[in-house]
Amino acid sequence: MDTLTAIKARRAVKHYDPEHRLTEEEERTLLDAAMQSPTAFNIQHWRFVLVKDPALRQQIREVAWDQAQVTDASLLIIMTANKDAWKTPERYWAGAPQPVQDILVPAIDGYYNGKDQVQRDECMRSCGMAGQTIMLAAKAMGYDTCPMDGFDFDAVAKLIKLPDDHIISFMIAVGKGTKEAWAKPGQLGYEEVVIEDTF
Amino acid sequence: MDTLTAIKARRAVKHYDPEHRLTEEEERTLLDAAMQSPTAFNIQHWRFVLVKDPALRQQIREVAWDQAQVTDASLLIIMTANKDAWKTPERYWAGAPQPVQDILVPAIDGYYNGKDQVQRDECMRSCGMAGQTIMLAAKAMGYDTCPMDGFDFDAVAKLIKLPDDHIISFMIAVGKGTKEAWAKPGQLGYEEVVIEDTF
Repeated sequence: MDTLTAIKARRAVKHYDPEHRLTEEEERTLLDAAMQSPTAFNIQHWRFVLVKDPALRQQIREVAWDQAQVTDASLLIIMTANKDAWKTPERYWAGAPQPVQDILVPAIDGYYNGKDQVQRDECMRSCGMAGQTIMLAAKAMGYDTCPMDGFDFDAVAKLIKLPDDHIISFMIAVGKGTKEAWAKPGQLGYEEVVIEDTF
Repeated sequence: MDTLTAIKARRAVKHYDPEHRLTEEEERTLLDAAMQSPTAFNIQHWRFVLVKDPALRQQIREVAWDQAQVTDASLLIIMTANKDAWKTPERYWAGAPQPVQDILVPAIDGYYNGKDQVQRDECMRSCGMAGQTIMLAAKAMGYDTCPMDGFDFDAVAKLIKLPDDHIISFMIAVGKGTKEAWAKPGQLGYEEVVIEDTF
């Protein structure tokens, strides 16, 4: 599917065929696409948790406002990130020429070390980019998606045994939609959203 | 361009043809695509600042580690968001059936009111999604991009007269690339990044 078509066709779909599952190959295509998303300094700090166990899905649904897509979608992906990924900078640049490594490896430490909010912002931003990649790739593969942040983040963290140095950004349901999304309910105008030069 | 192809072909490109500019129609296509990106509760809080004034671009370059793409790219987009967009919830659901409005409008207040970190996380996440939309749309339109967070955020905020209740998430340079991106320097394996069920 053409990229601009996929961007326009992607909508948050809430109802899914509970009998459908992605093939292993489709799942791999989707996650390989996600891993092509950019991260600052190539730190690749996202960690994508595929929730497949039906009992775990049910437990997550109970702390996610009882939303049906949590259990009914073909795949539930929890978008998490390792806040401490910047602490091992060498591995992200091991294949670069030495002069590039000499600049970038120390720059990573300087950018993140001791800056908790900067680390957190980076996790949210990178997961946003990777999440949109997943949603557009899924659309192009014939699937619908629903991005979700309506859930108890701490409870889901416990359920998936999230390490202390990781955080959850949001979740995405992926599957065969059975009902169209509702019409867009109140879209802002171009002039309000796009600003030239200064506010 | 096919969506999966665009996802694979998108790379952070640092060198641009400084003589090239997007047509007004191309610019509109790109920003219209960005506005199709999802936001939680449809709050559409992103505000995209197109920096066109060459003097302003030069000033931004000076607080952005002197990176050439800031002045040389066809377009520089500062991805900002209005942290207080949740305070006017009715407008995002004005076209929905009344029972939907009755549930969602108060839910918006409950989700964000008094929760500064939640508001900030939402800005970073939504700008991440919209930014990836821009980068993939640009690729499909024959352009390259470079996402950037290597700059002095406070200094750029002053330069674009960012309102106090808005925040910057990152910047994107868009244009005609003149040099290929370097080879990927140290990519993590699938097994490290993709987790099944629990850590």
